[in-house]
Amino acid sequence: MNTEKTIIIGSGPAGLTAGMYSARAQLQPLIFEGSTPGGQLMGTTYVDNWPSIPHILGPELMMQMKQQTHTLGARFAARTITRVDFSQDTFVLWDNKNTEYHAHSVIITTGATPKRLGCAGEDTYWGKGVTTCAVCDGAFYKNKPVVIVGGGDTAMENASFMTNFTNDITIIHILDTLTASKAMQERVLNNPSIKIRYMNTVGSIEGNGTHVTGITLTNKVTGETSSVATDAIFIAIGSTPNTAPFKGHIELDNYGYIVLKQFTQTSVKGVFAAGDVTDYRYRQAIASAGTGCMAALDAERFLKENNR
Amino acid sequence: MNTEKTIIIGSGPAGLTAGMYSARAQLQPLIFEGSTPGGQLMGTTYVDNWPSIPHILGPELMMQMKQQTHTLGARFAARTITRVDFSQDTFVLWDNKNTEYHAHSVIITTGATPKRLGCAGEDTYWGKGVTTCAVCDGAFYKNKPVVIVGGGDTAMENASFMTNFTNDITIIHILDTLTASKAMQERVLNNPSIKIRYMNTVGSIEGNGTHVTGITLTNKVTGETSSVATDAIFIAIGSTPNTAPFKGHIELDNYGYIVLKQFTQTSVKGVFAAGDVTDYRYRQAIASAGTGCMAALDAERFLKENNR
Repeated sequence: MNTEKTIIIGSGPAGLTAGMYSARAQLQPLIFEGSTPGGQLMGTTYVDNWPSIPHILGPELMMQMKQQTHTLGARFAARTITRVDFSQDTFVLWDNKNTEYHAHSVIITTGATPKRLGCAGEDTYWGKGVTTCAVCDGAFYKNKPVVIVGGGDTAMENASFMTNFTNDITIIHILDTLTASKAMQERVLNNPSIKIRYMNTVGSIEGNGTHVTGITLTNKVTGETSSVATDAIFIAIGSTPNTAPFKGHIELDNYGYIVLKQFTQTSVKGVFAAGDVTDYRYRQAIASAGTGCMAALDAERFLKENNR
Repeated sequence: MNTEKTIIIGSGPAGLTAGMYSARAQLQPLIFEGSTPGGQLMGTTYVDNWPSIPHILGPELMMQMKQQTHTLGARFAARTITRVDFSQDTFVLWDNKNTEYHAHSVIITTGATPKRLGCAGEDTYWGKGVTTCAVCDGAFYKNKPVVIVGGGDTAMENASFMTNFTNDITIIHILDTLTASKAMQERVLNNPSIKIRYMNTVGSIEGNGTHVTGITLTNKVTGETSSVATDAIFIAIGSTPNTAPFKGHIELDNYGYIVLKQFTQTSVKGVFAAGDVTDYRYRQAIASAGTGCMAALDAERFLKENNR
């Protein structure tokens, strides 16, 4: 069986940038696009924070990057890696059709999947007011009412970040107390721009066909419903790193994110990781692209050092 | 005196990306462009590894990024920060005209300056065959003769990386032994594609007006001159991080690079750093942009946490 020099798992900004760098180094990387080709930006509308392009649709940005990666010599497989064996020097991987692949180096860029509410209107208005990233989309909602869903650190951070833009912020939390750290809670509780609706869940998201206009809440104790007019819903109820196939094969942290040992190297030499699958803190496309570049250079160096 | 929320020192990919993120967070950052506005890419010609743009002139890429950063609300000062005092909560900075500035947070993105040979033809053909980055420009020289100048780890890495493209590689080294680590030396010494010319210096770089065609060497022992035909000269004799104003104010490593303590934070809380000024390993524009984004988010968080 042919052994690939580099297999890249995932095709968001980290995977594609790793692909570009590997391809330019003549390694002819094989990129597994996975179940969501292009990654999280495929579910957004406009991106205003990609350096060099002032304003572009998320899917368009990713299509450009894929085309560029392809032109540079990377190969794409429209499949998902579901199983791996990293125990030997030659790594073995299987895709969702049980086809087997061998590789001298692997770069994991499978990202993380933000948890969804699962309520009516969420899919319809995803990317049209429903978002998971205040840093990315906050600037679109200057002086507008916004809602944050969640009670943990990320929700508090989103609420705190949104005070840069508006003084009409409502946090919706399912419990009667916040689960965020004390310090984070205080920043929010002491801020007059932020209201908190405890013991409420989002029953549905309403809109005018093109954008969110409000939500309907259900009080968990009384069962009463109420409406909140809002232009944006920032869902901050956690993310799931896409690391199921790697469990037991490389070290993961308590939340399932990949642990990096030295630069971009995982606990297995020759296996590297980049992007949101290792990053619960920044979660920005440009940051993922940067670490994707680093992982590709580390993989190239690894191959040379080991004469592969 | 007005205290800025965030001052950014440097205007390469790290500084501009930090500026975009700070500006979108409504912090109205003030960016000091420094002595080389736009950074190292201003001295290059074509860039083929910026994700999203397949092929663009380095200066054009940086102009686009500057325009975007400006539009998002960052302010630019065409001055250089020459002196700082980070000993108080409010940081004090002075520029080259001795004007004083105050800031609640600072992001240092002053980069590193590759050392030059100082020989005839070097300036003329800079970016036209004379380069400091094999990863960036190697792919432009498939099956062409190339020269690497230097005897340390970076030179060996450049030579090793260039074996992906060509089997006609000559290392020019001023001493009679390599200074690179043993492991790096072995990869080069055992490679039939790589020749080494010891005890030689580059006397001049020749070209046809638009691109490098060769170099003239001088043997340090005999004084004899000789010519080497080549399409590219990769200068790998080291870089100087641009940290002179910060010495004694934040922790630097033995080579003068800024030491990061937690994420992008330096040894002083509220002072962050990103890009080549902290990175001797990757030195890629996209990697710098990624860490610039991270530093801006860390600075924003710092300001919120400290109610500034």
